[in-house]
Amino acid sequence: MYTCSLVRMSDKIKTFSMFGDAGHGGITRYSLSPEAFMARNEFKKRMEAIGAIIEIDDVANMYATLPGSDPDAKRIVMGSHVDSVKNGGNYDGILGVMSAMEVLETVAEQNIPHKHPLTAMIWTNEEGSLYPPAMMCSGIVCYDYLPEDIRGKFRYEDMMNSKSILDKTKTFGDALEVSGFKGDKDNRISPDKYQYMFETHIEQGPILEDAGNTIGVVDCVLGMFNYRVRFYGQTVHAGTFPMPKRRDAFYAASRALCYLHDEIDQLGVDDLVYTTGEVVCHPCVHTCVADYFDFSIDARHEDPKVLEKVLAIVKSVVCKEWSGCTCEVVKARNRDTVYWDKKLVSYVKSAAEELGIKHQYIHSGAGHDAQFAAYMLPTTMIFVQSKDGLSHCEPEYSTPEHCTDGATVMLNAVLKADAE
Amino acid sequence: MYTCSLVRMSDKIKTFSMFGDAGHGGITRYSLSPEAFMARNEFKKRMEAIGAIIEIDDVANMYATLPGSDPDAKRIVMGSHVDSVKNGGNYDGILGVMSAMEVLETVAEQNIPHKHPLTAMIWTNEEGSLYPPAMMCSGIVCYDYLPEDIRGKFRYEDMMNSKSILDKTKTFGDALEVSGFKGDKDNRISPDKYQYMFETHIEQGPILEDAGNTIGVVDCVLGMFNYRVRFYGQTVHAGTFPMPKRRDAFYAASRALCYLHDEIDQLGVDDLVYTTGEVVCHPCVHTCVADYFDFSIDARHEDPKVLEKVLAIVKSVVCKEWSGCTCEVVKARNRDTVYWDKKLVSYVKSAAEELGIKHQYIHSGAGHDAQFAAYMLPTTMIFVQSKDGLSHCEPEYSTPEHCTDGATVMLNAVLKADAE
Repeated sequence: MYTCSLVRMSDKIKTFSMFGDAGHGGITRYSLSPEAFMARNEFKKRMEAIGAIIEIDDVANMYATLPGSDPDAKRIVMGSHVDSVKNGGNYDGILGVMSAMEVLETVAEQNIPHKHPLTAMIWTNEEGSLYPPAMMCSGIVCYDYLPEDIRGKFRYEDMMNSKSILDKTKTFGDALEVSGFKGDKDNRISPDKYQYMFETHIEQGPILEDAGNTIGVVDCVLGMFNYRVRFYGQTVHAGTFPMPKRRDAFYAASRALCYLHDEIDQLGVDDLVYTTGEVVCHPCVHTCVADYFDFSIDARHEDPKVLEKVLAIVKSVVCKEWSGCTCEVVKARNRDTVYWDKKLVSYVKSAAEELGIKHQYIHSGAGHDAQFAAYMLPTTMIFVQSKDGLSHCEPEYSTPEHCTDGATVMLNAVLKADAE
Repeated sequence: MYTCSLVRMSDKIKTFSMFGDAGHGGITRYSLSPEAFMARNEFKKRMEAIGAIIEIDDVANMYATLPGSDPDAKRIVMGSHVDSVKNGGNYDGILGVMSAMEVLETVAEQNIPHKHPLTAMIWTNEEGSLYPPAMMCSGIVCYDYLPEDIRGKFRYEDMMNSKSILDKTKTFGDALEVSGFKGDKDNRISPDKYQYMFETHIEQGPILEDAGNTIGVVDCVLGMFNYRVRFYGQTVHAGTFPMPKRRDAFYAASRALCYLHDEIDQLGVDDLVYTTGEVVCHPCVHTCVADYFDFSIDARHEDPKVLEKVLAIVKSVVCKEWSGCTCEVVKARNRDTVYWDKKLVSYVKSAAEELGIKHQYIHSGAGHDAQFAAYMLPTTMIFVQSKDGLSHCEPEYSTPEHCTDGATVMLNAVLKADAE
């Protein structure tokens, strides 16, 4: 068994945390921003220092490759993203890039024999925070392999025309052209040149911490659905319209939300999660009754039968009486559960076991670039414990020791795959 | 008894409805916009045509005055506003101006004898839709007479610096300077020159229609309070964070809103109204649990003891358990009930009675410029039936017959005041 370097990993965490530092302990590092370029240049500098060859594809995905001993062997790739959400943390995404770098640095430093070329990779624009959608460039590169209903959201032309949320006159395509990171389409990751993919990521939940485990052996990305629940009432003046005749869409939605919690919780499914995080209120004025209120509902579980039951409850809202308002339930998107490659999962599990690093099986509730890659290549993921389960916020934290353990597990799992 | 002209009133309604016509039956006519200037010029043209003298004060309030037979008598003024909310209707505000014009036109046409000068008036920027706050220019003009806590919101310098909601580089003061409607401060309405004020307005509620009455004899503007109810939770990822550990601010707020309805409705106060029309949700993303949710609560009733009871319920929210979130209740503003002048109210009542126009006493739930004028002069209001109780929206409607009846009642009430 080989182990990665705590000192080197700590130095990477400290260095990358400066690129986009917002002064409150976290970062804002939008894709193709100056801050992201700093992170990409640091990646390039460190990878060239160990003799890795840098390639960039036509949507700025970056690849750093150490050759292997077998000239015919395909590459084993490890990667994640360097972009963040607004006021995000120092670990989501970048930890997977730093872990891949750490694996290559350890291989180079310790002269670890390997047949396959080993590649560390940066996916462009995973968060989609400045240029929606999320997972844009894995969507583009894996396009031909994706299920049709997902694929439709990642047409190349549409992605190039994606408008900046800060400046509607600028597009992702514009930013790409002037980035200096637009490379050659031939460099795209593909099954012709690549054998396996690994992605290390923070858990973004409290399960590992609560169980006292460092590493999550991820077995799947949970299936999910995302619907909108909409209420239509009548806007009237706050001071002049008697209560019994009101049709208040916000009150209707609040009653329906309480109903949904009651009904869904009665299913008694422990590991189900559902979220109503986004709302729209109209006219949203303190002197007017709301005539429109809309909330999102996102539900996730491995078992499609559970999701069917939850969806039936969500749809049942339409048939109830909600303070005189009409209601509709509209599908936004869904995805089936994506299972990781069983063999790669077993390599991760046995690597952790042999290293004596505390671990457990876990599902991924969040989407990741690896999930699109899985339609193209055998793929798996490794989770690292997140403090308090927080992510997409500045207090996001994983200890340097746990981060290094994650890289060590990935290194040894990759070497098992290499030794096949 | 004298009666106003249905034909002339219908023509005014048709004409003024064109100024800001948004193509869906209603208007958008922000204060000091080109559309508002068209309405002001039409007012000037029609008032000059009957020999009225036009004056404008330093905040663009416009006055058209027909002299009376007693050179020492103070003016009796009737007025309202010509500005609207965005996509508002053809009656809110402008009906009071058209009614005042109609009274003067009837007096002129029928040579009705009167001692007092009679003035039709336009208040500038009642809605505050483009330049907040609402009732800006009655607030400025009545400043010295207002209670201290209200007055503080209407300092002249602050009002001049009020920024356009469409272009933060422009202020109300800028718009006033270039309007061509900035006149002389000496022309401001004041107790030195003015005896009484009347304002005719649409009801903005369904009470008159439901009772089959044309006219509301308004006795007061209801007291109100406006608070914010705020919930603080923790934002976590929709897919990765187990349900039992979540602190969802939107769910907390929804549960609290249902609690408030239950508790307040148990008071069993028929004519109480309360509204939770404005919400703020953060981060308002479908993949994140909300860590902050805030809603307004506006409650109105004539009796301060009723409002005290409602406020106690609102404040009790802080002491309850809301899905792990903390809660605070913060005062935004309040006002005491403003009673209209009893003598003027009796003139309106007896005018309607003698004319045989169906009427009833009614409270005003909404605020109006007359409410500030009431701190300065004896003042009252007349309401005209609103179809379906709708206002601040394009379907807002009152029949030309009811509008004319409103003007007729005001004319005869003014003549009773004139005859004192």
